[in-house]
Amino acid sequence: MITLTVSLQVLPDHLEPFVEAIRTNAERSFTDEPGCLSFDVSQDLTDDHHFILNENYVDEKAVEEHRSTQHFKQWREAVAQHVVPGTQANTLANRLFHHHSPEADR
Amino acid sequence: MITLTVSLQVLPDHLEPFVEAIRTNAERSFTDEPGCLSFDVSQDLTDDHHFILNENYVDEKAVEEHRSTQHFKQWREAVAQHVVPGTQANTLANRLFHHHSPEADR
Repeated sequence: MITLTVSLQVLPDHLEPFVEAIRTNAERSFTDEPGCLSFDVSQDLTDDHHFILNENYVDEKAVEEHRSTQHFKQWREAVAQHVVPGTQANTLANRLFHHHSPEADR
Repeated sequence: MITLTVSLQVLPDHLEPFVEAIRTNAERSFTDEPGCLSFDVSQDLTDDHHFILNENYVDEKAVEEHRSTQHFKQWREAVAQHVVPGTQANTLANRLFHHHSPEADR
């Protein structure tokens, strides 16, 4: 399992369109891509313009497929419009340990 | 739901004891804490000394309880021994969107 973690900073006054764009990207990725097994979006408690994405893919090929979709292209356009340049940090990682309760899905 | 994301860099030659320490912390947190609903550990594909933790807690109180446990105290001692000083970055965030397939638990 491959975990993609993304950290980024949203431009002032761009919060609403950014949240709409990441909401759509998360939904489309999870629904349309068989290789995308989870997609979480969270907003920093101390800085509402700082977001973390946590995504899980079957393998690296599924990440490549994710990046070739139409919704990913639209997401990249939204990033160019709404994210502070240079603040996006992506980490692709191999998931070593996984613990998950059904209660986490509520 | 509160998501805690941790990024940290392990000292050279400390990989094995670090992995053992985070394996124990993840297991104990998930098993012993009713407020800890998920705990994932992943290792950067491009730097095997860079780790990302993704943890989900019911609320901020559950995070406080996590930090008051004996296994968290032991984890802090392991961090002091095995993690490059100044590299640990914690983000506490409010989970906005969540998509999760049972296949992500395999």
